[in-house]
Amino acid sequence: MPVATQGTIKGLSVDEVEAAGGRMMLSNAYHLYLRPGDMGVRALGGLHAFTRWPGPMLTDSGGFQVFSLAKLRAVTEDGVEFRSHLDGSLHQYTPESVMRVERNLGADVIMQLDELIAGGAEHDASRAAMERSLRWLERCRVEFDRITRDGREPAPPYTVSSDAPPLATADPEFDLPAPEQALFPIVQGGTHADLRRASIAGVLGTGDWHGIAVGGLSVGEAKADMYRTLEWCEPLLPRTKPRYLMGVGFPDDLIEGVRRGIDLFDCVVPTRIGRHGTAFTPDGTAQVRQSSYRMDRRPLVDGCACPACTRYDRAYLRHLFASGEMLGLRLLALHNVTFLLAIMSDARAALHAGTFTSWSAEWLGRYRAKGARQHDEELAVADS
Amino acid sequence: MPVATQGTIKGLSVDEVEAAGGRMMLSNAYHLYLRPGDMGVRALGGLHAFTRWPGPMLTDSGGFQVFSLAKLRAVTEDGVEFRSHLDGSLHQYTPESVMRVERNLGADVIMQLDELIAGGAEHDASRAAMERSLRWLERCRVEFDRITRDGREPAPPYTVSSDAPPLATADPEFDLPAPEQALFPIVQGGTHADLRRASIAGVLGTGDWHGIAVGGLSVGEAKADMYRTLEWCEPLLPRTKPRYLMGVGFPDDLIEGVRRGIDLFDCVVPTRIGRHGTAFTPDGTAQVRQSSYRMDRRPLVDGCACPACTRYDRAYLRHLFASGEMLGLRLLALHNVTFLLAIMSDARAALHAGTFTSWSAEWLGRYRAKGARQHDEELAVADS
Repeated sequence: MPVATQGTIKGLSVDEVEAAGGRMMLSNAYHLYLRPGDMGVRALGGLHAFTRWPGPMLTDSGGFQVFSLAKLRAVTEDGVEFRSHLDGSLHQYTPESVMRVERNLGADVIMQLDELIAGGAEHDASRAAMERSLRWLERCRVEFDRITRDGREPAPPYTVSSDAPPLATADPEFDLPAPEQALFPIVQGGTHADLRRASIAGVLGTGDWHGIAVGGLSVGEAKADMYRTLEWCEPLLPRTKPRYLMGVGFPDDLIEGVRRGIDLFDCVVPTRIGRHGTAFTPDGTAQVRQSSYRMDRRPLVDGCACPACTRYDRAYLRHLFASGEMLGLRLLALHNVTFLLAIMSDARAALHAGTFTSWSAEWLGRYRAKGARQHDEELAVADS
Repeated sequence: MPVATQGTIKGLSVDEVEAAGGRMMLSNAYHLYLRPGDMGVRALGGLHAFTRWPGPMLTDSGGFQVFSLAKLRAVTEDGVEFRSHLDGSLHQYTPESVMRVERNLGADVIMQLDELIAGGAEHDASRAAMERSLRWLERCRVEFDRITRDGREPAPPYTVSSDAPPLATADPEFDLPAPEQALFPIVQGGTHADLRRASIAGVLGTGDWHGIAVGGLSVGEAKADMYRTLEWCEPLLPRTKPRYLMGVGFPDDLIEGVRRGIDLFDCVVPTRIGRHGTAFTPDGTAQVRQSSYRMDRRPLVDGCACPACTRYDRAYLRHLFASGEMLGLRLLALHNVTFLLAIMSDARAALHAGTFTSWSAEWLGRYRAKGARQHDEELAVADS
């Protein structure tokens, strides 16, 4: 899922992402709650109508941003108090309020509020956060069932232009008063096998979920720890439900995740490193500002179907970044999104053909042979 | 002509500009001479191959930027010495060197080097610059004839990847070793009728040009002075040659220019004000950040064919600017370019139908009725 943090995949139009093979989009409840406001989005017809994204959509709960971006004031059993990173205003998230926010936004899949702790946290802290997340899941479920059963709450007292005609491309589906939504639980427990197992047991014991997320990874722990944790979880997760690894990732992480039974991913990394001039290639990442591209008329990645690779050459892409031109940012972001979506498409094809083991080994071998060093360098850029 | 100052129309892809109705593009010799260098562009196959613009292309001489952007060191009869605005390096432009730069860049239409002075300059200063521009035109013509007759100079000693395959979309036309080029002279003379007449007589006496430009307008003089100057020039300019008014302009300026016999225009204003969140509308300019757009689900401009108007609503465009999202800049730039190209298309249709007088009066009446105040405010933004 390409990430539209504020309701737009940074630098790209929905048409471009759809043409690149995008099928599901993620948006961020925290950002949209603050601006333009979940009630505003709802009055405008919900996220589908607002962003014009034609496919399925997921919102995270905003919990990750509350714990990482906002200024925390208090975390209690009731919920989280925080100050907005935009204007310092004071807000409260509870499991119940987050369900209402995500209901107003109107994505197809919405996430529970969970408690986040740092990657590699000790057992006691990991256990406490995991157990609280299970209690919050139950509160989310009760509130979700209530508002789903009762239907959408009455329209809020926002002013909508009374003579507003439907948009030229309006889809009647966008105006569904009570969208069908699915609530996904989040498995927590850090990098501790017993806690992950207890979290999965707790999650599976409280509802018949449409899908299950694995959270609390890719938050600072070693990659080997992430892969091992996925291996603990895999046999315990129902085979018939989509499994979503949150906040991951780089090309090799996607393939390592699929190897361990993951179906869904999301990450801002393709657009973020694209804005820094870094491109995914089958041989690792490449910086388009490099001087060897100055007179290089070859495509950025041979065989890539994106406009940056089919329409332009390396010399021009380098020129766009050297000159600070916005088109460069657009093209690299689109290339990177296309590249990740092509990996997932190729992985699906290999799974269907029964060749995933050899395909993934070959893919990772090439990517890591030349790319490991740059990859780590770029991780640092992406995190900056 | 949408303007691709550094070889890209800011924020837009060539496909978008073509779909918006763009037929001819302008690039800037000064910027491309400094970065990536005219010899580099030539080694990469020329501006058409470099930028992938499929239609005709014009380069200005760079003179305007030398006089306005670079740090001038000396202006003599021989030429201009200046320091780069990028790194302070020292450079010289002569009429002859500018011809070689523009030959290397390889646009279809190239402009002479002329001497620029401030709008509203006194008669003596205007006369001196006009007469020098005529002498420089003759030197441009002699050098242009020489390099055109002799064919392109030998390939420069740049390294091009020897195994570079042609791009997927490569057009054999892009690889013409010696493109057909046309040199356009520039009429000068400030806002003085006798000098404009003398300039036109001088220009017409020295060559059989493919087209003629009117320069030195829209540089700070009153709009009424610009229109009056065009009226002096119109009867003296050959009816069978395209007439190009340089650096203009806003919607009403285009229509006022066509009224006075102008065929070609260029201006950065649609993309520049778009980046500031200002949109052209039939009722003047509009700022998309305005609070009245917050819950407005109507298209930005009813009936406009651009993606900003057919795909999104005002509330979403406002949200993109309020959130600092790049997609907003793209969409507004594309809207404004589309808007100006539609005006020119409508003007051509009205001319063919014999209804230009009534069409233009109606268009300007509506645009100025509500728009005059905003228009002037936005001019200030565009110049900032």
